[in-house]
Amino acid sequence: MKVVKFGGSSLASAQQIRKVGQIVKSDTERKIVVVSAPGKRYSEDEKVTDLLISLAEKSLQDQDYSLEMNKIVQRYQEMAEELSLNEEVMVAIESRLDQLAAGDKSHPDYYIDAFKASGEDNNAKLVAAYFNQIGIPASYVSPKEAGLLVTNEPHNARLLPDSYEKLITLREREEVVVFPGFFGYTHEGDICTFSRGGSDITGAILASGVNADLYENFTDVDAIFAANPSVVENPMAIAELTYREMRELSYAGFSVLHDEALEPAFKKGIPVVIKNTNNPNAPGTTITKEHTKEHPPIIGIASSSGFMNIYIEKYLMNREIGFGRKVLQLLEMYGLSYEHTPSGIDNMTLVLREEQVSPSIEEALITTLKEKLQVENVKIERDVALIMLVGEGMRDQIGTMATAAKAFKDQNINIDMVNQGASENSVMFGIQQKDEDKAVESLYRAFFD
Amino acid sequence: MKVVKFGGSSLASAQQIRKVGQIVKSDTERKIVVVSAPGKRYSEDEKVTDLLISLAEKSLQDQDYSLEMNKIVQRYQEMAEELSLNEEVMVAIESRLDQLAAGDKSHPDYYIDAFKASGEDNNAKLVAAYFNQIGIPASYVSPKEAGLLVTNEPHNARLLPDSYEKLITLREREEVVVFPGFFGYTHEGDICTFSRGGSDITGAILASGVNADLYENFTDVDAIFAANPSVVENPMAIAELTYREMRELSYAGFSVLHDEALEPAFKKGIPVVIKNTNNPNAPGTTITKEHTKEHPPIIGIASSSGFMNIYIEKYLMNREIGFGRKVLQLLEMYGLSYEHTPSGIDNMTLVLREEQVSPSIEEALITTLKEKLQVENVKIERDVALIMLVGEGMRDQIGTMATAAKAFKDQNINIDMVNQGASENSVMFGIQQKDEDKAVESLYRAFFD
Repeated sequence: MKVVKFGGSSLASAQQIRKVGQIVKSDTERKIVVVSAPGKRYSEDEKVTDLLISLAEKSLQDQDYSLEMNKIVQRYQEMAEELSLNEEVMVAIESRLDQLAAGDKSHPDYYIDAFKASGEDNNAKLVAAYFNQIGIPASYVSPKEAGLLVTNEPHNARLLPDSYEKLITLREREEVVVFPGFFGYTHEGDICTFSRGGSDITGAILASGVNADLYENFTDVDAIFAANPSVVENPMAIAELTYREMRELSYAGFSVLHDEALEPAFKKGIPVVIKNTNNPNAPGTTITKEHTKEHPPIIGIASSSGFMNIYIEKYLMNREIGFGRKVLQLLEMYGLSYEHTPSGIDNMTLVLREEQVSPSIEEALITTLKEKLQVENVKIERDVALIMLVGEGMRDQIGTMATAAKAFKDQNINIDMVNQGASENSVMFGIQQKDEDKAVESLYRAFFD
Repeated sequence: MKVVKFGGSSLASAQQIRKVGQIVKSDTERKIVVVSAPGKRYSEDEKVTDLLISLAEKSLQDQDYSLEMNKIVQRYQEMAEELSLNEEVMVAIESRLDQLAAGDKSHPDYYIDAFKASGEDNNAKLVAAYFNQIGIPASYVSPKEAGLLVTNEPHNARLLPDSYEKLITLREREEVVVFPGFFGYTHEGDICTFSRGGSDITGAILASGVNADLYENFTDVDAIFAANPSVVENPMAIAELTYREMRELSYAGFSVLHDEALEPAFKKGIPVVIKNTNNPNAPGTTITKEHTKEHPPIIGIASSSGFMNIYIEKYLMNREIGFGRKVLQLLEMYGLSYEHTPSGIDNMTLVLREEQVSPSIEEALITTLKEKLQVENVKIERDVALIMLVGEGMRDQIGTMATAAKAFKDQNINIDMVNQGASENSVMFGIQQKDEDKAVESLYRAFFD
């Protein structure tokens, strides 16, 4: 069986929901359907989730929220009418919204989360009704009924592992299960939402929970591409990626989906396929534990800017047992997380996301490094971009570094840093931010043209 | 003024000592001469220091040590005779050796150290006598007289910093000071020797102590070469190196001198020149704080084998604050020091010297990584060689990585790891040990031919 998740743009209008209906109907293995809240229909459109948040905030401040409420109801209303759904659905949706507005305001975080979750929840009811109407026996199942239990952390809930004991029973349902993404219930019966990538998380949890053969993640692109299409013209679609490759790519700027959200599926070894609701016959990109097909040595090129280097120099650093650990401890003390630490003999470079490091933290850090760790020289470099060359095939291919380095040289780009661990899944290059796009283009041409 | 240090092979015979005399005579700035014990005259010869150690050990066990004693006395005797020195010197040397043999055996470490130190000490007396004979006014100065005070750590003494208060007065001496290397005196008046590179340390301490303009380190090679002459035929001599470059090179197998020994000179910014006693007109290699002349982007290529990689993989490692620090703490717990930690997103590689890691430590470490840090995958790779491309000029030169990577590719060598920090003083490549020489040769041809 397959767990299928549809993103917000796939469920933004009646026209889109019809496509979803066809997709589910065309494959009887698609037994569990996870839905997002209605997304944008056009680029200036408002997402229902955003409307729900402002509604909740106004309501908490006892302000008039009728504008938002009307807009939200209208979004569902339009879809229900266009799909000629039974009036019952709209009655359920409206009464749920009214019930939420009248809810307990003494815990604002929970109040907001319940509203946010209703975007998905109401959409699931609507989609289930539509499925039944077009002849797909389906039922809306709430996370409460299914036993999807989460921690008491509004906006950032985590799954409670004992949920899996009950989730497995979803397998036994005869009809298609339509399930709202993005949230679960606490043991106390409160709604708490997941963090970013919320509906992707729900899909991955259900895929894992019912031991699905495949987790299909429908979005609005045909595939994951080998490079950013806004930088490289018509980049190749990636047919198959491993989890590891996906992680390396999405870390460095590939944002098709929130890769961490897929963890529950990855942990069980369930393949994930990224497909396009608007072009469901395109093969999409499959993400697997190990490669199953021929694949090029380099699978993708990603880049990301907004990094900084903190370069530290100390004579005989190399002989000082515990020095590296002390530096990392210092970063932790300042609440900073680092990305890489390439090193020479008497120097190390800390690569961090620069947004974390305010001028005052920077100053304090430099002082502490010099005074506590007797560092002789500290140099800060901002506006650093990391270019990531990703592909497990690199391991068996001599000359990858030669091709890559030549691509930089040809564009007259200085390589400030290089980092390649023994995994040979990826190579990281640190360069100046201004050269980022030029570097990606040049590498793409070198490896894919 | 210059502090001049001569190594063991420069003082192994009368013929060599004559060269030393000429060198000191030819430059009146050479005011302080640090001497080693007589070294080998030919490759199967015995070093006086080794003879002294076996003498001391036999004496401690009340065994007959007359063989060693005779050999030692004979070494000095031959030189004294050939140089036609006054008999007084040999009387002093022999009586000192007898006095040492009759010394206090209740602290074997101190007993051995006093014997070891006598190799340098007696040679200094002999050299001073020779200098005077050829018309160089000179006097032997003992570390005790000069105030070179060290910690109570036999075989591994460290300088006590208050020594510098008295050492500066050596500047005021009119005659040439002949000073034995390798040891100092404790506050209690005991002799303790330095660790490795002992006479180099003494030279650097005196250069720093008297604020010398230059520290000349005479050895038996014309210069430091851009690559190991036993791997690359006729490699280029390096005219000028910075301290940083020297550190990177000697870390990866350049053993012309023990670079850490030079620290006292480096700290004061005193340049060090490596010269050849047997060819004093060769310009040698100067080691300075910063480059003062035109220099190629790559100054030298070093390599070193006997490393291992510990490759660690854990999904979402990247998001786990403190993970890297915990891994390093674990290494410390097992008393392991690491060299580099190149990393991917969800993996890191620890590069260590493999001799530290016995099979039982390896097993314990793997278990702890898996159980305590929930690491999912640990892979060990032994027989790793590190190739180090060194040169501060790299910073201003685009294309270094392209040239280097092509050199590996041309020899069909797979690059397992790359590590280049923002310093751009060096790039490290990890490869299989079997390809080490081939890689150095190929890189040398690429950068120097």
